[in-house]
Amino acid sequence: MIARSPIRVRYAETDQMGVAHHANYPVWFEIGRSEVLQLLGLRYRDIEARGFYLMLSGLQVHYRRAARYDDDLTLETWMQEARSRKLVFAYRLLRELQPGATEVLATGRTEHIMTDRSYRVASVPTDVLALLKTAVDLPARPV
Amino acid sequence: MIARSPIRVRYAETDQMGVAHHANYPVWFEIGRSEVLQLLGLRYRDIEARGFYLMLSGLQVHYRRAARYDDDLTLETWMQEARSRKLVFAYRLLRELQPGATEVLATGRTEHIMTDRSYRVASVPTDVLALLKTAVDLPARPV
Amino acid sequence: MIARSPIRVRYAETDQMGVAHHANYPVWFEIGRSEVLQLLGLRYRDIEARGFYLMLSGLQVHYRRAARYDDDLTLETWMQEARSRKLVFAYRLLRELQPGATEVLATGRTEHIMTDRSYRVASVPTDVLALLKTAVDLPARPV
Amino acid sequence: MIARSPIRVRYAETDQMGVAHHANYPVWFEIGRSEVLQLLGLRYRDIEARGFYLMLSGLQVHYRRAARYDDDLTLETWMQEARSRKLVFAYRLLRELQPGATEVLATGRTEHIMTDRSYRVASVPTDVLALLKTAVDLPARPV
Repeated sequence: MIARSPIRVRYAETDQMGVAHHANYPVWFEIGRSEVLQLLGLRYRDIEARGFYLMLSGLQVHYRRAARYDDDLTLETWMQEARSRKLVFAYRLLRELQPGATEVLATGRTEHIMTDRSYRVASVPTDVLALLKTAVDLPARPV
Repeated sequence: MIARSPIRVRYAETDQMGVAHHANYPVWFEIGRSEVLQLLGLRYRDIEARGFYLMLSGLQVHYRRAARYDDDLTLETWMQEARSRKLVFAYRLLRELQPGATEVLATGRTEHIMTDRSYRVASVPTDVLALLKTAVDLPARPV
Repeated sequence: MIARSPIRVRYAETDQMGVAHHANYPVWFEIGRSEVLQLLGLRYRDIEARGFYLMLSGLQVHYRRAARYDDDLTLETWMQEARSRKLVFAYRLLRELQPGATEVLATGRTEHIMTDRSYRVASVPTDVLALLKTAVDLPARPV
Repeated sequence: MIARSPIRVRYAETDQMGVAHHANYPVWFEIGRSEVLQLLGLRYRDIEARGFYLMLSGLQVHYRRAARYDDDLTLETWMQEARSRKLVFAYRLLRELQPGATEVLATGRTEHIMTDRSYRVASVPTDVLALLKTAVDLPARPV
């Protein structure tokens, strides 16, 4: 299962090179994670309401082509690994060149752990983990 | 009492106009507020630890000259009004032209209320208010 | 003419108060301005391509209720004043309470000047100004 | 040669987990890169003035402990690889526990290419490359 999220590059996301600043990509990835959860009928806010935080422990991004102001991009996000103590999401950011033709702007990967509200490592709740496992997908290696 | 905070413009704060994006100014103002409190022997984190949030209810900025990447700026922040249900801070952002000569890049003003952790309006705690009142200053009108 | 833009609050836009940080509102307003221009058949990127920057000279925001992570908001943006040397946009940020009932989270106002690529004040190009004038609207006073 | 940059965590950099949002780390890394260049007598703005952009092509961050609002951190940045078509910087973000004792919050690594103003890959200018090579350092493996 791959979530597809539209991302329109905001002016505030550009920098003086005239492209989207690279620190926005992890912000966009977070939008993609929300959507993966939502497709599974989970909402991240409900996970937090139950007392858990989905903390980032690792981030990797490969930047291939610059995103520009006002670009209409598509972010693909999928679950790559779902274990009790480690969740891995992967990402592919696409730009349409013309109907039917896209180019890859970036690929990425994030690793996560669950913690409780005191930031102590916790296991992913069993019901959440079961759902996440159903979503694990292994398309074209992201990074 | 006026707090003076050094601000160096970060690359990520620029936009494709080649200047610091205007949405960074309220972020810088927040640094100035922390410093005003610190000069009074208060730390904002302690106020939150006591169960209060200093919420922004109003923001005004006048932009006169653009800040640029790597500029070394000075932010002046002072308390303009300190009442139980309303706090007002004012700001002046300066750039040194040469030793002894500065120019004003922007002026600003923020209004705040205190709330409890459920975001319900609360009075500023008496001891905090007493301290803040000692800091009220009325230099050159900011906005 | 009022542009209505959907804004979904991103996780990265929250702060440790548990609400959307106030510095995001001017970033959202910028999205609204883009949409006003687009409704007029203008694209901001084309204005820049012609050698002009739409610089912010003033910003005012009144915050009434906090926006929260994952909220689906609607931003209303309209042109309030369109003159050769001064453009004013106004904003109203809304959250739906239930079908047919909304609440106002914030109102705002931005003032702008045009500059050339060297940041020297310029007149708004005649054709752009004529279009902007057709869009001036004066609904409920925003700030 | 290792640049040491002070980073104080801003309130706006926190998220509703109560920690610094992970997307700020690449913004901080950029501050460290500026300082490495500055220690070499280079200023990044001068490199841009000569018509070059230092584009990010890869980013890796390992997050070990969360940074909190108002933390006084130290960012160590060093040049790990300096070649005509590829520059690599490495990072270590530290928090002082007590005088003489620090803990590592995160480590990171960024890969870069030079481009011209049209975003076409370019070789690092010879004089810049020579300087960068003198700075290559290989301390404790960062990521």
